[in-house]
Amino acid sequence: MTAADGGLGIVATQRAVLTENGPLVLASGAKLPHVEVAYETYGALNPARDNAVVVCHALTGDAHAAGWHEGARRPGWWDNLIGPGKALDTDRFFVIASNLLGGCSGTTGPSSLDPVTGRPYGPDFPLLDIADFVTAQRGLLDHLGVERLHAAVGGSLGGMQVLEWALQEPDRIDRAVVVAASARLTPENIAFSSVARAAILEDPDFHGGRYADHGVTPRHGMKIARMMAHITYVSEVSLEEKFGHRRDTAGSDKRLDADFEVEHYLQHQGTSFLERFDALSYLHLTRPMDYFDPFGAHPDVVPSTRFRLISFDTDWRFPTAHSLRIRDELAARGVAVEHTELASPWGHDSFLLQPPGYHEAIRSFLD
Amino acid sequence: MTAADGGLGIVATQRAVLTENGPLVLASGAKLPHVEVAYETYGALNPARDNAVVVCHALTGDAHAAGWHEGARRPGWWDNLIGPGKALDTDRFFVIASNLLGGCSGTTGPSSLDPVTGRPYGPDFPLLDIADFVTAQRGLLDHLGVERLHAAVGGSLGGMQVLEWALQEPDRIDRAVVVAASARLTPENIAFSSVARAAILEDPDFHGGRYADHGVTPRHGMKIARMMAHITYVSEVSLEEKFGHRRDTAGSDKRLDADFEVEHYLQHQGTSFLERFDALSYLHLTRPMDYFDPFGAHPDVVPSTRFRLISFDTDWRFPTAHSLRIRDELAARGVAVEHTELASPWGHDSFLLQPPGYHEAIRSFLD
Repeated sequence: MTAADGGLGIVATQRAVLTENGPLVLASGAKLPHVEVAYETYGALNPARDNAVVVCHALTGDAHAAGWHEGARRPGWWDNLIGPGKALDTDRFFVIASNLLGGCSGTTGPSSLDPVTGRPYGPDFPLLDIADFVTAQRGLLDHLGVERLHAAVGGSLGGMQVLEWALQEPDRIDRAVVVAASARLTPENIAFSSVARAAILEDPDFHGGRYADHGVTPRHGMKIARMMAHITYVSEVSLEEKFGHRRDTAGSDKRLDADFEVEHYLQHQGTSFLERFDALSYLHLTRPMDYFDPFGAHPDVVPSTRFRLISFDTDWRFPTAHSLRIRDELAARGVAVEHTELASPWGHDSFLLQPPGYHEAIRSFLD
Repeated sequence: MTAADGGLGIVATQRAVLTENGPLVLASGAKLPHVEVAYETYGALNPARDNAVVVCHALTGDAHAAGWHEGARRPGWWDNLIGPGKALDTDRFFVIASNLLGGCSGTTGPSSLDPVTGRPYGPDFPLLDIADFVTAQRGLLDHLGVERLHAAVGGSLGGMQVLEWALQEPDRIDRAVVVAASARLTPENIAFSSVARAAILEDPDFHGGRYADHGVTPRHGMKIARMMAHITYVSEVSLEEKFGHRRDTAGSDKRLDADFEVEHYLQHQGTSFLERFDALSYLHLTRPMDYFDPFGAHPDVVPSTRFRLISFDTDWRFPTAHSLRIRDELAARGVAVEHTELASPWGHDSFLLQPPGYHEAIRSFLD
């Protein structure tokens, strides 16, 4: 659980203030007067300053992408990918991971104090675009003195940020790895996300976003939102293999509440989510995906970046068709892009796991 | 809107008491001392008494399958199938439709008065099996003096009842039409249903099922449950065609709550459901599907019934694989069974609509 496992050992989250020279201006025109970003780095910036890799997290990730926090029971969320000798090799690369703007794990978000009022932003936090997530990451790079990026890497919402990165900064990034992502959500994608948000927004304990003032959280809505969303992250075949039709109480009476193993699993997913996530952050980080239209927002940009797109055959949240749309749009602009669909039983969540060929595809591309 | 449309004209729901000679005994052994069933009939029983067809409704259907109620704005839920000259031709057949046991549209269910206590059953209503839905329908047939069935017809949960009918009464039914149904839910099916139920069960206004005593209903949970379930009833392609990426307020500010057309559509689905359905009935009618295992419950039964199974290529709630499993099990028992997969853009809901070849497949089979 330390460096003895050949990994990064103990790491710590740091913070940077991005607004020392003025407010952060959002794509909407709104301004945030004080923005802090939680981040971690792994490996070292080389003298040529050309080995930095930005890792972008997905919806419920955070800055702790790899290594171990003191006393933690599990490593960072992408520790299988990032470390000495791993596909994202920290002996070679300077890896930068940060918590998203609007999040709830150290970076300024709706639960942060509004310096104007002295109380949490709550419902007054401005709506964000995925472009704003990237703007905050650019601010962090300035803070760290990093100009060029060897690569930007991310899956799901993280992959959407990578795409936005390359269109916002067409000459700054050598390589982009976009995994299980989308450049335009389908109405079905929006529908699932919308019902999850409605579960939170319409929970009586949401109090119009002022739940903190009432000393409550919209627990019911948050739990249901997470349970439902989780179904879309996994595949039918993985649920079948993991749980089948088994009941926890086989032989005992049937019941209306959780009985089948898959139900207990979802209950656990929903309940444990309550400990670690803020309701308004959930709303503010999901909603920008619905509006995301990077090719429409950057109609004439031709990035010099080379792209590797990866999708998974059992991913029904962002199936391969989404990656093909990105590929076709980039190729039409003359951008160097290649796409690989990998076989994996784990659905959308595959981007966090190690299906055959996945890490190798990233490693070879970063070389 | 009356007989002038060539349909059945005005029809009315009737009621039958099934417990005049004793309680209704459920598959679990529990007994219901007083059971009423709401039903409608269309056409006439012929002198040979061999032209009766039972129509089984899906989760949120009712006894009003066809024709018009006085002053109604729309006809019964399967009016496109049932009527003079239609695929289920009421000039030839005596069609019987009834509301499910446990329902909330005229048949005894959790919101009915428990004759023992004089107040609504609420959480004391016994858990049902799909076998019990059929038991109640058999009681109605006795009441109507109908012995043989020319056919039993149903889609989704209705199709599951048809399968149970044929296994419970292997020599009573000539033909069975099982549309978009399943003989064993997948863990993904159970997962969606479980989250919908959790939304209701864990709504603070559910009050352990005693919400009627508190003068409330678990509206929040019911609405979210319905919105989520509705996504699984439609197809990605139909949502794309119907709504695309269009916003109601295109050009105006982005927002966290409903903005895209697909979101307003789901909001409407959820809200209108509150007017017509009871929360405990929703729990009691969905849960038996999870436990449904008709071939396991009737291991040695070989129905004399001929089966036509129909599935739809865009149905991802009960895809064709479910129908093939039913086909293989019946065929292994030597039962006459044929299966057709039809092309339809509308997903699971196709069974209520008229994709090409669908009604013809039913009409020809009933001839």
